[in-house]
Amino acid sequence: MALKTLSAKAAAALDRELMSTGAFSIDQLMELAGLSVSQVVYRVHPVNKGRRILVAVGPGNNGGDGLVAARHLRHYGYQPAIYYPKRSKNDLYQRLAKQLEDLDVPFVDDFSTALQSADHVIDAVFGFSFSGEVREPFPAVIQAMAESKVPVTSVDAPSSWDIEQGPPKTGVGSNFHPDVLVSLTAPKPLVKHFKGRHFIGGRFVAPGIAKKYDFDVPAYEGVDQVVEVGPEGLKL
Amino acid sequence: MALKTLSAKAAAALDRELMSTGAFSIDQLMELAGLSVSQVVYRVHPVNKGRRILVAVGPGNNGGDGLVAARHLRHYGYQPAIYYPKRSKNDLYQRLAKQLEDLDVPFVDDFSTALQSADHVIDAVFGFSFSGEVREPFPAVIQAMAESKVPVTSVDAPSSWDIEQGPPKTGVGSNFHPDVLVSLTAPKPLVKHFKGRHFIGGRFVAPGIAKKYDFDVPAYEGVDQVVEVGPEGLKL
Repeated sequence: MALKTLSAKAAAALDRELMSTGAFSIDQLMELAGLSVSQVVYRVHPVNKGRRILVAVGPGNNGGDGLVAARHLRHYGYQPAIYYPKRSKNDLYQRLAKQLEDLDVPFVDDFSTALQSADHVIDAVFGFSFSGEVREPFPAVIQAMAESKVPVTSVDAPSSWDIEQGPPKTGVGSNFHPDVLVSLTAPKPLVKHFKGRHFIGGRFVAPGIAKKYDFDVPAYEGVDQVVEVGPEGLKL
Repeated sequence: MALKTLSAKAAAALDRELMSTGAFSIDQLMELAGLSVSQVVYRVHPVNKGRRILVAVGPGNNGGDGLVAARHLRHYGYQPAIYYPKRSKNDLYQRLAKQLEDLDVPFVDDFSTALQSADHVIDAVFGFSFSGEVREPFPAVIQAMAESKVPVTSVDAPSSWDIEQGPPKTGVGSNFHPDVLVSLTAPKPLVKHFKGRHFIGGRFVAPGIAKKYDFDVPAYEGVDQVVEVGPEGLKL
């Protein structure tokens, strides 16, 4: 049985509902989403496989998830570095960046150079609200991730992919196939085109909300904030 | 080597510093503190030992940690019930309560009756800012926890204990000895009087802050948000 997916439009409505009737703050949701991402990286790339995690951070919520993940990874003993070229003036993102600075996590200006000494990359550039064209300076970032042999974990969506249709047919991102994907709350339709290891994270959705949006809460184990699912959505 | 402790005054200053120069929001800190508590309960009282967790919630931040812990425990498969007689009008606490209501977590009016059908209790009544007398309706709650055979996990401090001096010599709480204690960020001086299983949680303190407040960040493992420490602070 395939996991049900959540369209871009439904994902945006779910986010709004979690923060209105669901009574969650964005601080809470982002903390739990970023924690999920950090647990996936710990699982697919244990500390002893190399500590240097490069995090590509976009200007919106997907980037915020990446900032939170980097903080948790630092506490797990990794050495993250942040590429964050379009800093938001949003108070929350500024605070998340400050929390990393207080942990002496470096912010780097040149993604391609940083990639050469990275053991793993987190792609937190664009999430489910992405559509249209990849804006500067991110085309080169996506191209570098696509061409690099360093494994990549994408947050919610491989950046540049269309949320419904998957990888673009031509141009930036058409050859970008990350190794790992963390779908937050529920997979988006693009997972049909994804061939790597697939996890679901974001263990905060009430059954009533999942039912309303017609997706399944996966069978998380123990205190895990993530669960690995197979290509057909089957639990591994 | 004993773990260093944090006085009530220092703990309050640390909290203020985390939320000012540390740039954390209270939503974030409470989410991570409550998550820590839920992980301790999962460890000391696995789901197969009985799912019914009764959470005694006080009017302040300690109570908020309990509300967050209850939500995570519900997601782990427990059946929490909440005793929350002095509801705060504070927006955050109201939202945390709403999140539980959306998960069909019951709020109970009679603590003693609820205790009779509980498998485990979380004492989230008072934390490091407690001093002086236990106000109504909590004396009977603390008395009931003290006399019950149902195991109790206290959040940051056994409620009614003096943060520096430990259990009161007489009266309410003088016979209250919880089974488990979760110290948040660092143990308080009262731990010298505590004989049960002792955990530290709250994996978000930067080394620079710990150094300034002169306590040790314990050696957490993997992605754990908690670590068990021995009576002398030695890692078990």
